[in-house]
Amino acid sequence: MNRFLITAVALLVPLAAHAKPPAGAAPVSGLPTSLSAETKECLSCHRSDSPALYTQWGQSKHFRGNVGCYECHRAEKGDADGFDHNGEFISVLVTPKDCARCHQREVAEFLGSRHAKAGRIIGSLDNHIAEVVEGNRAFKSPGFPGGNSAAAVNGCWQCHGSPVKVVKEGKLDPASWPNSGVGRINPDGTEGSCAACHMRHEFSAAQARHPNTCGKCHLGPDHPQKEVYEESKHGIAFAANVDKMNLGSAKWIVGEDYSAAPTCATCHMSATRKQPVTHDIGMRISWNNRPALSIRPEVADAKMGLAGAKVNWQTRRANMKDVCTACHNESWADSFYIQYDETITLYNDKFAKPGLALYEAAKPLLGPSFSSVIDFVWYEIWHHEGRRARHGAAMMAPDFTHWHGTYEIARNFYVHFIPKLKDLAEKFAGSKDEAKAKQAAALGAKVDEVLNSPDHQWFLGKGKAEPPPAGAHK
Amino acid sequence: MNRFLITAVALLVPLAAHAKPPAGAAPVSGLPTSLSAETKECLSCHRSDSPALYTQWGQSKHFRGNVGCYECHRAEKGDADGFDHNGEFISVLVTPKDCARCHQREVAEFLGSRHAKAGRIIGSLDNHIAEVVEGNRAFKSPGFPGGNSAAAVNGCWQCHGSPVKVVKEGKLDPASWPNSGVGRINPDGTEGSCAACHMRHEFSAAQARHPNTCGKCHLGPDHPQKEVYEESKHGIAFAANVDKMNLGSAKWIVGEDYSAAPTCATCHMSATRKQPVTHDIGMRISWNNRPALSIRPEVADAKMGLAGAKVNWQTRRANMKDVCTACHNESWADSFYIQYDETITLYNDKFAKPGLALYEAAKPLLGPSFSSVIDFVWYEIWHHEGRRARHGAAMMAPDFTHWHGTYEIARNFYVHFIPKLKDLAEKFAGSKDEAKAKQAAALGAKVDEVLNSPDHQWFLGKGKAEPPPAGAHK
Amino acid sequence: MNRFLITAVALLVPLAAHAKPPAGAAPVSGLPTSLSAETKECLSCHRSDSPALYTQWGQSKHFRGNVGCYECHRAEKGDADGFDHNGEFISVLVTPKDCARCHQREVAEFLGSRHAKAGRIIGSLDNHIAEVVEGNRAFKSPGFPGGNSAAAVNGCWQCHGSPVKVVKEGKLDPASWPNSGVGRINPDGTEGSCAACHMRHEFSAAQARHPNTCGKCHLGPDHPQKEVYEESKHGIAFAANVDKMNLGSAKWIVGEDYSAAPTCATCHMSATRKQPVTHDIGMRISWNNRPALSIRPEVADAKMGLAGAKVNWQTRRANMKDVCTACHNESWADSFYIQYDETITLYNDKFAKPGLALYEAAKPLLGPSFSSVIDFVWYEIWHHEGRRARHGAAMMAPDFTHWHGTYEIARNFYVHFIPKLKDLAEKFAGSKDEAKAKQAAALGAKVDEVLNSPDHQWFLGKGKAEPPPAGAHK
Repeated sequence: MNRFLITAVALLVPLAAHAKPPAGAAPVSGLPTSLSAETKECLSCHRSDSPALYTQWGQSKHFRGNVGCYECHRAEKGDADGFDHNGEFISVLVTPKDCARCHQREVAEFLGSRHAKAGRIIGSLDNHIAEVVEGNRAFKSPGFPGGNSAAAVNGCWQCHGSPVKVVKEGKLDPASWPNSGVGRINPDGTEGSCAACHMRHEFSAAQARHPNTCGKCHLGPDHPQKEVYEESKHGIAFAANVDKMNLGSAKWIVGEDYSAAPTCATCHMSATRKQPVTHDIGMRISWNNRPALSIRPEVADAKMGLAGAKVNWQTRRANMKDVCTACHNESWADSFYIQYDETITLYNDKFAKPGLALYEAAKPLLGPSFSSVIDFVWYEIWHHEGRRARHGAAMMAPDFTHWHGTYEIARNFYVHFIPKLKDLAEKFAGSKDEAKAKQAAALGAKVDEVLNSPDHQWFLGKGKAEPPPAGAHK
Repeated sequence: MNRFLITAVALLVPLAAHAKPPAGAAPVSGLPTSLSAETKECLSCHRSDSPALYTQWGQSKHFRGNVGCYECHRAEKGDADGFDHNGEFISVLVTPKDCARCHQREVAEFLGSRHAKAGRIIGSLDNHIAEVVEGNRAFKSPGFPGGNSAAAVNGCWQCHGSPVKVVKEGKLDPASWPNSGVGRINPDGTEGSCAACHMRHEFSAAQARHPNTCGKCHLGPDHPQKEVYEESKHGIAFAANVDKMNLGSAKWIVGEDYSAAPTCATCHMSATRKQPVTHDIGMRISWNNRPALSIRPEVADAKMGLAGAKVNWQTRRANMKDVCTACHNESWADSFYIQYDETITLYNDKFAKPGLALYEAAKPLLGPSFSSVIDFVWYEIWHHEGRRARHGAAMMAPDFTHWHGTYEIARNFYVHFIPKLKDLAEKFAGSKDEAKAKQAAALGAKVDEVLNSPDHQWFLGKGKAEPPPAGAHK
Repeated sequence: MNRFLITAVALLVPLAAHAKPPAGAAPVSGLPTSLSAETKECLSCHRSDSPALYTQWGQSKHFRGNVGCYECHRAEKGDADGFDHNGEFISVLVTPKDCARCHQREVAEFLGSRHAKAGRIIGSLDNHIAEVVEGNRAFKSPGFPGGNSAAAVNGCWQCHGSPVKVVKEGKLDPASWPNSGVGRINPDGTEGSCAACHMRHEFSAAQARHPNTCGKCHLGPDHPQKEVYEESKHGIAFAANVDKMNLGSAKWIVGEDYSAAPTCATCHMSATRKQPVTHDIGMRISWNNRPALSIRPEVADAKMGLAGAKVNWQTRRANMKDVCTACHNESWADSFYIQYDETITLYNDKFAKPGLALYEAAKPLLGPSFSSVIDFVWYEIWHHEGRRARHGAAMMAPDFTHWHGTYEIARNFYVHFIPKLKDLAEKFAGSKDEAKAKQAAALGAKVDEVLNSPDHQWFLGKGKAEPPPAGAHK
């Protein structure tokens, strides 16, 4: 290995020198100078047993750095998922703890992010839907004798991650493995999975930076970030210029190493001339649009006990504007944020706040959770359509803001939610159960209050329609 | 600059010689021989302040032709959006008027097209939905003290365009800028935006010809041309052969410069061996499928007072068939049009005409516009599903014609629209308001009439189902 | 032609020697050594009349093998679609029989597959929807004087194929041509169309192996395999690595010739180190997820009288696992199948079986087929959402399994299907028609039975919600 190569490799893994040296002789860069004997032993079979894996690895930086099968898959004494395999103690799972042997900084950032905590949703509201409403407990496996819902296992768990159970001798429970969720809960106690984005076994930067990688989970009716991006000018520029994106470059600074388009990574993670790359994906986001009511990210982080609670939205927005200004001027970025904020305000004030209050008023009159059409209509208003409107505005995809977003919100609010709430109030108005009758009266009053408020009185034919904005043509 | 380069550049901008010469010394081609002093001044800061823009421009034909920042952004005395910026009078907005300094023919074609008029929708029916039903006037800005609906600003305006307001000293109102709509209404009185398709700041032909560029607006539930194209054989061929498309070629004649696939531009705009490229996108379209009832394009153009009123659909169809025959024989193209026309006829006759009549009959019994589920069901039948069926047939994507189209039209017509109209007629049948009772009777009679007509009597169990077509297997 | 080229060409068309020699002198490989006189005659016009076709063909292996227009388009005496064209007897249609002159093995495999039988759906339930509910018989053409439904012609027929009618002198009826369906029923009696996937006129392997080719038909609400694939890790790897896929290689063995990603073809058709490429796309599929209730493929094949009836699902699954293990280890593949099977079981047991029984009980109380919302809700539960859940699990796209799948199934089952069945039972409970009243009682009893069963009693507030799975975080 010549001097240049050593320097180059050291650059790629700048913290390697501080990490525990993996097997093999280690030069100053911290990387071995040849494949380890153990890895050679692995390859003696897997070269032909898993030919595609072998080839993928052969194209990776790991290969050039003499990091092979054993360096990642070796288990430590006491690892729950370790097992003896032809004389070596290894594990199938490679967890963030394993990756951190070399990639300390990246893993630390990732572990502090919401990505790594995605598995905590198991057992929450969304999971009630998958476990009880959609599923049952028929999927019994050694690690889960009480059974799981196949809808959760094949659905939720594959994006959010789930606990991975070790059955015996390192064998992983078939309900919990394969598991591609970013918030996988590993037998070694760590949360998260690097392989959710850095796919097997090439770990190519180009692949990780490709928008479709994020689209593994960020797509569909309830969080269509992938589709939103594709519609936006950013996505259009990417599709037309993918060959100019320099996606495989080690140094990948927007405005220096590429300028044709931004990917998801560009805006949320990658380096600018002022900021280093980060694996905490929340640090440039100034609204958390996950809940029914959009909140600031530091509030959301505080709820989960994350360190992000200390980083306010203004800081995060400044981080993002720093990205914007590689291509746009500052006043453009400022105006964009005014437009975006106004959509959040419209959604929050006109639909989310009254919607939450109405649903709260209806709840005592409804049966088990998600047994009524009202549950679903309200859920989709905020969880599906409401997010589409907000994400559409966040990333400038007008079709998602409007047709998939505010249009559907308004339709479902006025001609499904409101009428069904009225029916519910009427149904229980004369109930002999006094509590129910009272709740029905309160619900009816709440409906009236909302419909008579300035934002909604048009529905009753009240209020004057203001003239269209000046300058508009007919 | 050698002789060859001068010739090549002259070819690219054939009208440059007739345009007002931009700053800098101009040779016979009309293009400057070096960057202007003003542009050099701009670059002295923006090279580092907006590095990605600088790089994009460096890859553009503009750079090779010594057309720089100042040549496009310079303002004329009296321009409402002009402002002094470090000693130069410039504007942020570059309008079709600015582009026409060099690109006269292209701008003239564009200004005559429906694209440039897209901003006129502001204040129309669709805008009522965005302004009143989905929105409110809470988004107040200096240029719009009465406020705008954020749903319109982040939705409608970003495809259709909106009036751009100048607040002071060239500063653009944040509700109206950023604005990426193709029908932007500019402070200089022009309609349209070239940058809607020719993206900043490379203005690459390859990017403009990419189908995703059109997909910025032509996608989604109500006009999914992008998705339709992707399903079609045309889109499949493009995806598999994108590297053979020669997308960056100056001369881009189908059958000469490329033959692997057509893009949106190929069929609707680009050159054939007989036709030059055109920026009037309606000149090859023989049905206007925008309204509830499909009409001929010359009729639609007449309604908007466009010059296209003089170009009948037969001419436009002949233009398109000329494109088809680069790859297909004439009888293939003829038969395709028979199939397409028959879908329009089926849609118009079976659903659109009776649907319009039924909605008309229901209207007097409904409340404010879009306060009833009937408004939405009918609207989506023609505006969403009806367009999908028609566009699917127009571009040969069977899934959009059928599953996203005629299937959903039929479902919503028979099991949502009709039953809800019956309920409405019943509700007002015994009304003490005599007018209402009469309208209810008329609506009920209209429903009966439609259901007893040959196309719909199957719904009542009447009429004989004809045998399946001969030759069909069971 | 040098020795190497002869060998190479012979390799590409290994059965050519056994096929009837096409026009032109034939060397040992069975391929002509020069273009035939007839083809040269064709080209004398079509070179300029159909320039893109000419260029496509010029890039094809056919060109290199001196297989030209005439070799594929020549008709045999007596061919119904043959006609005299400038002195040659030719046909527009190229059917599997024509392709089999050289590609015997591929055609034989294809003809035995379900793909070739797709046209048999014409006249079935799905066609009732397109012909009667969505359509009418207004599309009259010489070959179909009784008329067809344009919704069927532009919809169903373009994926499934239809009978192609010859009107006169080889002219094809405009309702039946253009026809891009894979199960086209040809005038020569053969079923199927090679050109459905091998597009005109380059017949490029790279294009045929591209996932979008399959997406011509396998997309949309009822069988979104294309979208499912795109979300999956397989599709992500493809998108990021398309340039490494070696898609044009003659030999294309996963793990040998490429390893970056699998396409649809990789898993369902293409060669592994143990299996040759096959054009029978069902031979690696272990569940048939088309019907309301998932069944084994050999059962489905037996229903259609296909040879596949003799190949059980275990064999097909072993075939597929052989593909999996190019990249995954065996226990990974085993566990994947456990997860997949459990989703099928959940869907079949919790929704499909009771749903079918409920619909059966409701049928006598419903009007003409697809005149009630109940028809559509049940149809979409199994035909749309149910397939999405099953295909999502089959190909590991969690969003389709869950949000587009089991979530929508559950929602529509509980808050649309069940309530509407109850309403129906109530409506006829007091009917004077004794049979109806009895049927209504039976329907009501069936609803009660289902809702009180272990999978559904949560809906009634009965049963104890079991604790969430151990190890789950709150």
